Parts: sequence; structure tokens; C-alpha cells
Amino acid sequence: MDTVDALISAQGSLDILTLEEAQLLQKSSNSELYHLFRQCCLAVLNCGNDEDDISRLLARNEPFDVEIVCQPRGALLQLYNAPSSAFVNDEMILGIKESLFAVLRDIVYIHNHLLEPSNKNLKSSEITNLIFEILRHAQALIPRRHPKITVCWGGHSINPVEYKYTKKVGYELGLRGHDICTGCGPGAMKGPMKGAHIAHAKQRCQDFRYIGISEPGIIAAESPNPMVNELIIMPDIEKRLEAFVRLGHAFVVFPGGVGTAEEILYLLGILLHPRNTHIKMPLIFTGPKESADYFAQIDNFIAETLGNQAQQLYDIIIDDASKVASQAYKATQEVAIQRQDMDDAFHFNWQLHIDEDFQQPFVPTHANMANLCLSKNQSPDKMAANLRKAMSGIVAGNVKQFGIQQVRQHGPYRLTADADLIDKLEKLLHSFIEQQRMKLPSDKTYEPCYLVQGH
Amino acid sequence: MDTVDALISAQGSLDILTLEEAQLLQKSSNSELYHLFRQCCLAVLNCGNDEDDISRLLARNEPFDVEIVCQPRGALLQLYNAPSSAFVNDEMILGIKESLFAVLRDIVYIHNHLLEPSNKNLKSSEITNLIFEILRHAQALIPRRHPKITVCWGGHSINPVEYKYTKKVGYELGLRGHDICTGCGPGAMKGPMKGAHIAHAKQRCQDFRYIGISEPGIIAAESPNPMVNELIIMPDIEKRLEAFVRLGHAFVVFPGGVGTAEEILYLLGILLHPRNTHIKMPLIFTGPKESADYFAQIDNFIAETLGNQAQQLYDIIIDDASKVASQAYKATQEVAIQRQDMDDAFHFNWQLHIDEDFQQPFVPTHANMANLCLSKNQSPDKMAANLRKAMSGIVAGNVKQFGIQQVRQHGPYRLTADADLIDKLEKLLHSFIEQQRMKLPSDKTYEPCYLVQGH
Amino acid sequence: MDTVDALISAQGSLDILTLEEAQLLQKSSNSELYHLFRQCCLAVLNCGNDEDDISRLLARNEPFDVEIVCQPRGALLQLYNAPSSAFVNDEMILGIKESLFAVLRDIVYIHNHLLEPSNKNLKSSEITNLIFEILRHAQALIPRRHPKITVCWGGHSINPVEYKYTKKVGYELGLRGHDICTGCGPGAMKGPMKGAHIAHAKQRCQDFRYIGISEPGIIAAESPNPMVNELIIMPDIEKRLEAFVRLGHAFVVFPGGVGTAEEILYLLGILLHPRNTHIKMPLIFTGPKESADYFAQIDNFIAETLGNQAQQLYDIIIDDASKVASQAYKATQEVAIQRQDMDDAFHFNWQLHIDEDFQQPFVPTHANMANLCLSKNQSPDKMAANLRKAMSGIVAGNVKQFGIQQVRQHGPYRLTADADLIDKLEKLLHSFIEQQRMKLPSDKTYEPCYLVQGH
Amino acid sequence: MDTVDALISAQGSLDILTLEEAQLLQKSSNSELYHLFRQCCLAVLNCGNDEDDISRLLARNEPFDVEIVCQPRGALLQLYNAPSSAFVNDEMILGIKESLFAVLRDIVYIHNHLLEPSNKNLKSSEITNLIFEILRHAQALIPRRHPKITVCWGGHSINPVEYKYTKKVGYELGLRGHDICTGCGPGAMKGPMKGAHIAHAKQRCQDFRYIGISEPGIIAAESPNPMVNELIIMPDIEKRLEAFVRLGHAFVVFPGGVGTAEEILYLLGILLHPRNTHIKMPLIFTGPKESADYFAQIDNFIAETLGNQAQQLYDIIIDDASKVASQAYKATQEVAIQRQDMDDAFHFNWQLHIDEDFQQPFVPTHANMANLCLSKNQSPDKMAANLRKAMSGIVAGNVKQFGIQQVRQHGPYRLTADADLIDKLEKLLHSFIEQQRMKLPSDKTYEPCYLVQGH
Repeated sequence: MDTVDALISAQGSLDILTLEEAQLLQKSSNSELYHLFRQCCLAVLNCGNDEDDISRLLARNEPFDVEIVCQPRGALLQLYNAPSSAFVNDEMILGIKESLFAVLRDIVYIHNHLLEPSNKNLKSSEITNLIFEILRHAQALIPRRHPKITVCWGGHSINPVEYKYTKKVGYELGLRGHDICTGCGPGAMKGPMKGAHIAHAKQRCQDFRYIGISEPGIIAAESPNPMVNELIIMPDIEKRLEAFVRLGHAFVVFPGGVGTAEEILYLLGILLHPRNTHIKMPLIFTGPKESADYFAQIDNFIAETLGNQAQQLYDIIIDDASKVASQAYKATQEVAIQRQDMDDAFHFNWQLHIDEDFQQPFVPTHANMANLCLSKNQSPDKMAANLRKAMSGIVAGNVKQFGIQQVRQHGPYRLTADADLIDKLEKLLHSFIEQQRMKLPSDKTYEPCYLVQGH
Repeated sequence: MDTVDALISAQGSLDILTLEEAQLLQKSSNSELYHLFRQCCLAVLNCGNDEDDISRLLARNEPFDVEIVCQPRGALLQLYNAPSSAFVNDEMILGIKESLFAVLRDIVYIHNHLLEPSNKNLKSSEITNLIFEILRHAQALIPRRHPKITVCWGGHSINPVEYKYTKKVGYELGLRGHDICTGCGPGAMKGPMKGAHIAHAKQRCQDFRYIGISEPGIIAAESPNPMVNELIIMPDIEKRLEAFVRLGHAFVVFPGGVGTAEEILYLLGILLHPRNTHIKMPLIFTGPKESADYFAQIDNFIAETLGNQAQQLYDIIIDDASKVASQAYKATQEVAIQRQDMDDAFHFNWQLHIDEDFQQPFVPTHANMANLCLSKNQSPDKMAANLRKAMSGIVAGNVKQFGIQQVRQHGPYRLTADADLIDKLEKLLHSFIEQQRMKLPSDKTYEPCYLVQGH
Repeated sequence: MDTVDALISAQGSLDILTLEEAQLLQKSSNSELYHLFRQCCLAVLNCGNDEDDISRLLARNEPFDVEIVCQPRGALLQLYNAPSSAFVNDEMILGIKESLFAVLRDIVYIHNHLLEPSNKNLKSSEITNLIFEILRHAQALIPRRHPKITVCWGGHSINPVEYKYTKKVGYELGLRGHDICTGCGPGAMKGPMKGAHIAHAKQRCQDFRYIGISEPGIIAAESPNPMVNELIIMPDIEKRLEAFVRLGHAFVVFPGGVGTAEEILYLLGILLHPRNTHIKMPLIFTGPKESADYFAQIDNFIAETLGNQAQQLYDIIIDDASKVASQAYKATQEVAIQRQDMDDAFHFNWQLHIDEDFQQPFVPTHANMANLCLSKNQSPDKMAANLRKAMSGIVAGNVKQFGIQQVRQHGPYRLTADADLIDKLEKLLHSFIEQQRMKLPSDKTYEPCYLVQGH
Repeated sequence: MDTVDALISAQGSLDILTLEEAQLLQKSSNSELYHLFRQCCLAVLNCGNDEDDISRLLARNEPFDVEIVCQPRGALLQLYNAPSSAFVNDEMILGIKESLFAVLRDIVYIHNHLLEPSNKNLKSSEITNLIFEILRHAQALIPRRHPKITVCWGGHSINPVEYKYTKKVGYELGLRGHDICTGCGPGAMKGPMKGAHIAHAKQRCQDFRYIGISEPGIIAAESPNPMVNELIIMPDIEKRLEAFVRLGHAFVVFPGGVGTAEEILYLLGILLHPRNTHIKMPLIFTGPKESADYFAQIDNFIAETLGNQAQQLYDIIIDDASKVASQAYKATQEVAIQRQDMDDAFHFNWQLHIDEDFQQPFVPTHANMANLCLSKNQSPDKMAANLRKAMSGIVAGNVKQFGIQQVRQHGPYRLTADADLIDKLEKLLHSFIEQQRMKLPSDKTYEPCYLVQGH
């Protein structure tokens, strides 16, 4: 692989670390934090080289190294063996550079403010406060900006027809002035931004936001596209999901795999909570006409697991990008009115109640996975919470380093479910495999990291 | 067709016409000027609906009408039966609106300042002054901006592989900070802007220029893409071509048909003039690997008609977008140095000598076409001038209203050429037909509007 | 005097003259135009050195010279023996540089477009169109900007108490967001801008406009303060006055001399015209408490010459800057509503009718002055028109080169008035002399350039 | 006094407090913090009403109250009985509003981050880190901005001649592009900003910085001028002084009283430290010609107490504003070079060593004042440190609430000095009294809050 060494000075005001803060990330001072930082940097630098096989990525980039050069005038980053694709004319592409320093900013902040002992066992409202503070520190909270953040969810591994459709939806959203927020990887996380950007040009809109929200565990597998002009690293997947729903004003879901299922279950679980029934959160499932079956299946799974009430919470629109966008547009106007009526902020959805069960980090050990209650004897929102965790664990087993290691050591995760549920779950997951949504297509055949079994 | 009526008030400062100027464009006061204005408006409003069959376009939009509503506070445009595709949420797409008023600006200016009797028979230097004044009035001359305008030429009717490649080249140019200037229609005129725009986002570049230069005769067939953020209407094709070469710092040619051949011959003809041999004007022919033969043929045609010296004036780069861009980048650095050394402006290439033969409008009547000297008994630059006119006439016969009428009345144009040349010319033109470069593919078979014959 | 030589390149886009235009201003090509240009440059460069004795100024700056250096890349100005006060750290103060190029812009434009033979004998509406075109070319017409231009008139020669008060009024206007427009010389033309600028800082207003409108005949005696960020040179005093009333939304008059009297008579004369009686033009006379008598006298003179109706057109507010500003603020809100109701522009008062008698240049020869009809046997607006001319002539005799020469050759101007009027006029003019409002105080005693006599 | 009630929503992004943070400042939750906040608000709102008699100010504003209204969409401030001078057209002057929220920002930040137990006993480098963090949080550290912050020190109580001169120096600094940083009260803290602002307008400079650094103890007596566009509240006088010297690139001292003496002694004490001798910190004492004696006396006092070496650290320039500015300009160019050579930041002077003795808060109790070692038996930098504390105590006794209370309870502070020093100190202080520099002139005679006595 073509690589270069480079000494990078920061953009904007991000470089004004104290000397202490810069020390933090030295290889020698804190190898764990350093390791995390190196890995995030690598992901950012590899953007465009779509790849979700983390071990390959890491192996290929083994000689890569990053070092913080402490200087009173601000931290410099010394890169060794960085992928040359991040550079043009010997200059780092500006969007990549900004993302690099966003990573630096968030990792230092999270370390300084959140990982203190007093922050170890947080309660629900404290977690929400943390999320607010991280977003505020990342300057992602813009008071009084009209609600127009559309969160786009969907798979990183989608086919060309689906990808083209995500661009079209992004385009139509862009024509209507919407900002785009995604998980910032490839596929359905990239397409809407590209489409929106062409539309924003036509509308002469220059203050567009392309917000990418990631987390250390997934960033390597979902390297942030440099079109993202606001990259935010949340501490874990649960806080990442909460950031999405606190920031977003409308939600559009494209076809995807277990990650997308996790996102759907997360949001439905929250919206099903009795304290949230009055809150407007427009949610649209959409895809090209080839995806009609896909969404029928998802819809069916939701009906059978969470019930009819859950089905009322979303619309399915097939092959009509302009309708998706105009519905999202109209809905966000209503969100604006509701926020004003409730004296809630535009920039952070304080009113939304999120149960601690959706907030506390779920660590996908084999024990935790095995203990998930996948039974119909629970309220729909509890069911959603547990299914969400199951999906989260499978994502980890597929593409996250921790999960992959667990599975390598102990074999596939074993989920225990009601007889009734087993079948539905297996069918859904199996369809993801068949449609190559679990991982990006490669020469290796996908090996499931899970088993679903009865009690 | 879906249409709407709308009353449009202007963007920017373009709306401050005097009452007199606004009167000019009333249907009643000057039917010719009004007609021209209506047609240009229509073209702008139809952007995106790629179509080069002017009669169809006009027929379909027959009920369309535009009226200038004079008000002291500025002119308003009242549109009747305008294509609804130009609107989103009942608002005109901003880029289209800007283009509409750019048309208004240029038509009024050209009328006021250039069509006076004293401007009827202009000499060479006066023509260049006119071009300067139109560009200055359109605020297209930006002093001291570093040379980085890349003019991209190529067909409006190209295949998907070629189109994708033009986007890739645009992307690589954008990464290097280049502005894009094209004829502002579809195909090779749109692709580079789209590609560049994605790259500009990644480089956080917000002052990019996407310059579209058109002329009344062609605009209907090459409706300006609203990504164009500077639309300029020149009075005729010769002034349009001169505007390209006075503004541009590097020239990239993609595959195309007779229009592209006209552009190539125009530029080569000028560069072959003894007074221009020292001037740096980087010129690159490029396309995907499937275009290799195409450019071999063009190269061959040039060699045989203009000679080896002409071949020295360009590079052919096949299937290497990044090389095209980095060569263009390096070359514009040298252009910058040369301009400074010669005390020439960055914003207007005053030094370039253009023979009057390339400047005086060529009207494609049958007589003028028949009289063209297509013989080897002339200097290469004269040969280029005459071949350029021949190509220009064929473009008119294909897609311009005047040419189409002439051909309908008098049959195909008859070009008379040296025996030697006939064959080469026919082969070239024939290949354009075969590759569907003459017109956008449609259900009608292309009927040649020309005949090449011996003396 | 301390002087420097300097080669100045232009700011903004003003430097893109054609080679032809640059030639225009060469000493050799048109000595009259060159002379005018040199004199305006000198005035701009001398800003701050308050002085209204033109011959002294010219004598002192005799060695000063300016030359346009023609280069394709734009015109440069070569200055010889320029006052060093215009430079800091060897760089010209930016505001002065902008003013220099504004002078260049307007002189070239006026020459190119207005001094053609066809523009020699203009009718009323044509004159208004010209004014519109000059202002548009100077980019002084900003569509849709909320009405807030306050024109401040008053003497260039005022005492420190009055000067301080003009700053206070400017400050209060600035707090309310008003733009300031003056004749751009010292005294009452400078104070309001300084005051407003401090207030604009406190209000964090950064798009303030400090518009200075001058004319070639007076600019030498009223050198533009570099706080003026939009300097406009109109062709003569009548067009300058019309520019004020077409641009302004509210009018504040401070104490002054004959120039101020001219302005008051001009505006009252127009407002008295039957076609203008419905138009809102807020007009306030104001000064510190020491000026109470002064305005009583003016008020009295108006009553006796133009009648009670004229007195209804203004308010006199003594020593209450905040009241002046809040009244101006409220009045401009009403102007905004009226403009909208009448479909008139915010940026140009098209509705205002101005009689040709107020528009045609009045040349202060002795014959013209002697022929002025200063008799009560005329309508108030005619009376205002003639008194305005008389004042205009006296201004010329005091500080304009043409007038001074006339008076030097032929002795004082002789005005012929009704017995009744003689006394009033003399008293008024005499009070201006006593209060040192005719010229800036100097070691020379003021010698009247006029005589008022009976029929 | 004229007062109004008003509900104020925030400017910029300052309003996005967490609900917790907003709670902090409720009257009920923390009366001490609330009290501090109320007092700072009052100071900000009273800007312009120059007054340093805190008890009067407080008495007059007794009915004033401020309440934070917690709303999810951001904190609002409800003001009761606020001085109406802060409003125009029922809207708060924007600069005052910004200052209000700057106060809010800093008080919350200081509370949250600095007043934790772990921050109670900070060591030298920790204090510097704190200062860096407060300034960073206030966005006052702007990396890579060219060094041009001129710190202007001098009295709040100066005479009109001196005040006019501070404006002139500010004007000349502004012409050279300098930013101004002061203690943000009246007198010498306001004049330079006003002057600079006029010059910045002439130089078309719009990104000027007028930085005001205050602290809770003094802010009531030195209400921040709303021209200050960056208001920063440091926790105490020592941190405020350190902020000045870490941020500033050049230092200009105008005539003043004990506060100014404190500032001079602070800076000289630091510069005399052996570790700082190589650091460039341009320091100029200046005033109108009437101040010549004043500075001779200061110079003499320095010579006699700190020695000749200290005299080498500053220049005295009398009555030459332009020389002051051009010397400051040249010196900051050298500072820029030195910072680059030493790899130090432009935005924070990390290299400067500050002894803990200058950093630890000095609390002006009678015991602490009495214990100060004012003897010649110490190194010049120690002597400076102790004299600085003495001056600081007297400032407190004059205008700070804490000091005034101490003196009211225990009588004047008693300073014990070497026989030799007594005389010099008394003479200096006495001259401050005579020249009315201790407090703003009022109807009360100044009563010294100190006694100087021998051992």
C-alpha cells in the first residue's frame, strides 16, 4: 500500500490543547487511550477505502503510527505510513484533517470529563446530560436553527440500486434544505450526503450540516466519509444512538442489516414508551422498488414482535424519493411547532424519555447475550430493548473488534428465545445473510456469529 | 406536462433595472428581444429535462409565457405554465432563479451596449473589448484570483461510461481546488461540475466557481444545469468561444461530436498562430479506456489536416483522471508564473492573439457553407478556421433553430473539399453519427444535415 | 509638507478597467478629465487636513501628481508627492485607497455614459434615470434593505459644541441601526458618522453604511472622511442633491451656512410641490441648546419666504439627541410601510416628483445670479427653487473654484430682490458670517462674495 | 432611576446550559454564587454610568433582580428593575447582552471546573493551566492570529486631557491593526478602544478584538464598556493579571493610580525574574505632555525601589501617540519572530515564568497587609511582588467591597516599611490622591485607606 509520513498542524481552534492534554495521548503515557486514538485516526485516514474487515484493515496498516508532538503553540500530529489516498498534492484533504482533529477533540474530552470515577455509574438523567455536554463541546448544538436534521439510517453494505436510491432521497431532502445526519460510514450513510450536497449547490445553500456520529468500537469498520463536516465520536453505541434521537428531527431508514435493525428497534422501543406517545418523531422506511419485499418483511417482524401499535409509528414509502422528502419536510415543520409549544429546544430533544434500559452500555459477552430475555411475556418496549441488544451483539460479532474476539474464543453467541420467536428471528437474520447485508461482500463466505435456540 | 404559474422577485442586485430597461423586454415593445428572452428562460427552467430536440421542447412548452412586471421596487417575472420541475415546495430552486436573472442581465446588457449601430461592424480589438465588458458586467472577472479555471469541453450526448469518467476528472480537479467552466449543458458539461462539487466539499472549499457560458442560439438545446453558479450568455458562438479562451487557464476535452470538434479546431487554430506560440495554454484530451480509439481518430484527423505541429499542442491521457488533474494543476501553476512575468491579468488572457477570422460571426447559410475553403493549400491556422466553421454549421444544422430551418428549406449543407480531405472528413463525421454523438439518442434516426463533396 | 511617492494597486473589482478606459485618464489624452481626476484624488488624499481654502490647498500640493499605469492586469495608480498623512507603515490607509478608486470608478463612468452628446440636454425623467444608473453602478442601490438611511446635513464649519452634538445624534441613530449619509466633508458631515460608528460597535452591527455623496466642484473643499465606506461622486450639485433625496429615508439638519440653507430650500421646495404632498419625508432640524436661536431664525426665514405650509414639513428639536433619533427611527418605519403600500422601492425614491427647475444645473455666472427672480410674486416652490440657486451661487463664490474665479474677475455677485426680501436675506447671510459658517475660521477675514440689492 | 423589566434570551451559543448548570445560579440554590452573578450583571447593565462608589451603585440598584428562567430550549434571563439605559427601542443593546451572557458563561465555568475541592490549592503550573482553560473556554485563544494584542493599562479616573490622549493612542494603534485589551472599565480602559474603533473603520478592519478582562471583585466599580466585544471574567485579580500578560503582545501604560501601579509592579516583577530576561515584552509608559512629571515620578520610584535594571524594561514616550503606536507595532513584529523561534504560541505566552508569589491570591486583610515585607533587603523581583500586594490592598480598600468592609471595621491598613521606603511610598500615594487618581472625583473627599509606618 502506498503510504506517506506527514506532520499535520490543526485546523480551527481544535489545536489548543493544554500541554497536559497533549501528554494524555502519548503512546507512553496511556497505552489504552493511545491505542484507541491510533485506531480512530486510521479509520479517518482510510475513508473511501470501503472495507469492514477490521483485521485486514489493521494488518494492512500495521506500520501506521501517529504521535502527538507537543508544542506550546499547539499540538501537531506526526503521522507515519499514513495511507497516501488521504493526500492530494502532498497536502492532506481538508475534510480528513478536520475529522482527525475532531477525533482528537472528542477523545480528549471524553477522557477528561467522562471517564472520571464519578462518571462510572451514571443514572439516566446523568447520561443524557453527558450526551448534551459532549455534543455542546463538539459545537453540534446550534440554538434556534430551524429543525431540519434528517437522520438517515441504513446498511453500510447495500447494493448499487439501493445506493443510488439513497442518493436520490438525499438529493430531494437537500432541495428542501435538510441537513443530513448518519453513522458516517459507507453505503446508506454516504449516499444521502452526496445527493444532498448536489441539491444544496442548486439551492445555493452553504451552511449545510453533514453530521456523522460514530463510536470507537465501530469507527474502524465505518470509516467517516470526508463529506461529513461535523464528525462526533460518542463513547459507546448506546450514547451514539441517544445522540441520534436527541439531535434528529426526522428519521429515514434505508435497507440494511443487523445494525439497521438495532436502530429501528431502539427508536421504536423509545417511542412505544407511554411517556413519549405525544412526541412527534417522523419515521419513514424507504427503498427502491426492489426493496418492497425487504420492508414488508421488516414490517411483518415488527408486527409480530412489537405489535400493531409499533406499526403506527412509521410509514413505508417505496420508490418515491420526492415523497419521502416532502413528507419529512412537512413533518419537521410540525416538529418545530411542537417544540415551540412545549418550550423545548430545537437543538436537543429534552422531552423524549429514554429508559435506562436503552442507555446503559450492553457489553456483548456470551453470558450477556445468553441472558437476554427474548420472550413475548413482556411489554413491547421491553421486547424492543432486548431485541435491540441482541442485534447489537450480532453487529459486534460481525465487525467490532471486541465481538469478533469473543466469538473467536467462545464460538457463536447463543440467543435463547421463545419457540415462537426463534423462527421469526432466524428468518430475518437469514435474509440479511442472503442479501449480503451482514458484511461487505468479499471472497470469504459469511459465517454467522450467532445461534438462536429455544429455552 | 406539469406546469405552474409563479411571480418571481429577483435575487441579489440584478433586479434593479431602470424602468426603461424593464420596458425593453415587454412582449409589445420588441418582439424579437422578447422572443429571445422567452426562449432563454424556457431553457433555464427546463434544466434537467435533458433534450436537444428544440422543436419538441418548444412545442411541448408552447403555452409557456414570461412577462416582466415593472415596479419601481424592481422588476418581477411573471411566469405562466412554467415547468413544475423548477420548483420545490412552491419555491423556485434558487440556482434556477439566479440563472433566470443572469439571462435577464445579459440580454439587457447586450441589447443596451452592444447592439447599437456603432457596434455593428466591430474590428478585432473591439470585439475583444466587448467580451471583456460583458464578462465584467456579469462580475465574472475576479482580479488576483489564482489561475485555476479549467474549461471542460466535450459532448452533450455521451454514454454512461464517458459521463462517469467526466465526473471522476471533475472530482480530481476539485480536490486540487480547480474551478470548472463549461458550455453548461448536459453530458460532459455537467459531469465535471458534479464531480468537482463533491471534492470541493471534502476540501471545505466554498468559493468554487462553476461557470457556464452559453449563447442564445444553443441555450435551448443545452439548458444550463443549476449547479452552474455563474451563467453568462454571450451574443454568439464566436464570442462564446473567445470568452472560454480568455477566461480559462487549462483546457480538458472529453469525447464529443461536432461541437467538440469545433472547440478543438478553434483553440488549435489560435494556438497555431505565430504570435501565440509562446503562450502557455495547457490542453488535454481525455476519456475512459473505451475512448482510446476515439481520441486516436481525432489525433489522426488533426495530424492529417493541421499537421504535426498541431499535435504538439495537446496531450492525450486515457483513463487516468488523477493524472489529468495533476497535470492540469501543474500547468496552471506555470500559467500563473507566465502571466505574472508578462504582466498579464489572471482574470483575462489579453496576450492571446485571435485572428479576426475566428472572431467574426459565421452565419451558416448554404452559401456560406458552400464557400468554405476546405483545401490543403492554406496555412494550418487558416485550415483550422475553415474547418471550425464547417463544424459550427453542422452543429447549427443539428440543434440550432436557424440551422434547422435552413436545412429544412434547402436540404443538407454542401461542403466542398479537396478530394484528399473528403474522405477524412466523412470518416470523422460518420463516426460521430455511429457513436450517437450528433444528437441525444432518441426514437428518430439521425439524418445528416450535410454532404461533403469534391470540387 | 511631508510627501511620499507610491504605486497603488486597486482594491476590490474596481481595477478592471479596459485598456481604453485607462487611457482616458492619461494626462496627455484628455487634460480636462485628467485635471478633474487629479483634483479629486488630491481631495481624498488630504482627508483629515480640514481646509476649505482651495487655492491654498492646491498651491501647497502643486507638486502632487497622479498617473494611471496601464497594465493588462488592471490599472495601477502612480502617485507623486502624495501627502504622507494618507499612509501608515508605508501602506495607504485602506479607506483612503477605496475612496481613490471610487473616484476613478465614477469619473470613468460619468465620462463614458453621461457626457456623450446625446446626454447633453436631458429632460427631467432622463436626469433621474442617470442618477439611478450612477448609483447602481456604484453599487449604492441595495434592494430590500430596510429603510434606514439618515441623511445628515449641516455645515462644514461648525463650532466644537455643535460638532460634539452631531456626534451624539449620530450615536443615537447608530444605536437604532441607522445608516448615515452626508456630503462627506468635515464638521456636521463627519460627526454623525463617528458617533454612529461607536454605537454600531455596541450594537455589533457590521454592515453599516457611511455614504458620502460629493461632486467634483466641492470635493476639494470637503475632502471625504475615510470613515465613509461608500463614496459617490455625482456630476454636479443638482444631481448630488437629487441623489440625497432619492436615497435617503430620513433627513436631519444641523446648523450650517449657505450650503445647508441650499439643502433645506431644495428639499422644502420639492416637498411643497403639489404632487409630493402625500410623500413621507421626515425632516428634523436639530442642534445643541446653544443653537436654539439659530434655528428660530431659520424657521422665521422659512415662514416669511415660503410660508406656514413649509413650516409644517419639519420639526425642530433642540438639545435632545435621543429624541431626534427615536423620531427618525419611528418615521422611517412609516416610510417603509408607505413604500410597500405604494409599491415603491426601498432603495430609490421613484415616487418623489422633482421639477426640472431643481434638476437643471445652475451655473453661477454673474448674469445667472443677477437674473434670479427673488420676489414674493411666485409660488412657494418656485421661490424655494430660486432661493436655492442663490445660495448655491454663494457657496460657489465662497469655496468652489469656478465661483471664486468669477468673483475675482467680476466682483461680488449681485442678487436683486424685492425690497421686502432684501432685509431678510441680508440678515440671514450676515448671521452666517458672524457665526463663521461661511468658511472655516482662518487668519483671513471673510469677504462676502455677494451683494443683495433692490430692483 | 429609570428602570425596566425584561426577559432576555441569549445570543450565540452561550445559552445552551444544561438544566443543571442553569439551576446553579438560582437564588435559592446557591446564594453566594447567585449574589456574585447578580452583582456582575448589574455592573454590565450600568455600563456608561461611570461610577466607582460601589455602595452607592448597589444602593441605587437595590430593587434590581435577575433570575435564570430554565427552559429546555436554553436559559433566559428575567431582569427586574434593570437600568433603562441598557435598552434602545425596548431592545437590550446587543453588546450589553453579549457581555451579560459572557458573565454567565464564565461564572458557570469557573464554578464547575475550578472551584472543586481538588482545585483549591493549586500549584504554579496548575494555575497557569486554569487560566489557559478559562481563556480557551471563553474562545479568547485564537491560534495563528498574528500577534497584535496591545494591553492598555491606566487609571479609571483620569482627566479629560489624559482621556483624549488615550483615544489618540488607540487611534494610532488601530491604524496599525492592533487589537486592544484592557481592564474594561472607564477612563484609560475605554479611551483606547474608542480611538482604535475609528481607525479600524478607516482601515476597513472588521475582525478587531476589544478584549476586556475583569474579575468579580472589581467589576462593579469598573463596569465593562459595551465596545468590549470579548468580556472575560477571571476568578481573582492575580489570575486577571496573569491573563493580561499571557495574552498580550505589547503593553502600554497611561497615567493611573494604585491599580496602575499594581499592574506596573506586577509586570516588572515578572520581567526581572532571571528566567524571563530573554523574553520580549514591549512596555511603554505614555501620556500627554501634561503627564511628563507624573511619569518622571513613577520612573523615579521604580529606580529607587527596583533599581536601574527595572528601568531598562520600559520606554517613556511623552505626547507622541503615533510614536507609541509605531514602536508597539515594530515590537510586536519582533515578538512574533521570537515566538516562532522558540516554538511558542502566538495566542498564549507559555514561556513566561511567573513565580507562585505573583500567582497565589493575596487577600487584603489587615494582618496580611501588615505582614508585607517592604524592605530593601530583598531581590528586586521580591520587592516588586510585595509592593504589588500593597498596591492591590489599597485598591481593595478604595473600591472593592471586601476591602471597604475591612477598612470600615478595622480602620486604615497599616503598612510597615523601611524608613527609607516610607517616604517614597507616601509621596507616590499622596500624589495619586492629589491628582484625584484614587477614585473618581465626587463630592466626598478621599479618605486614605492606608497608613505607612516604620518598623
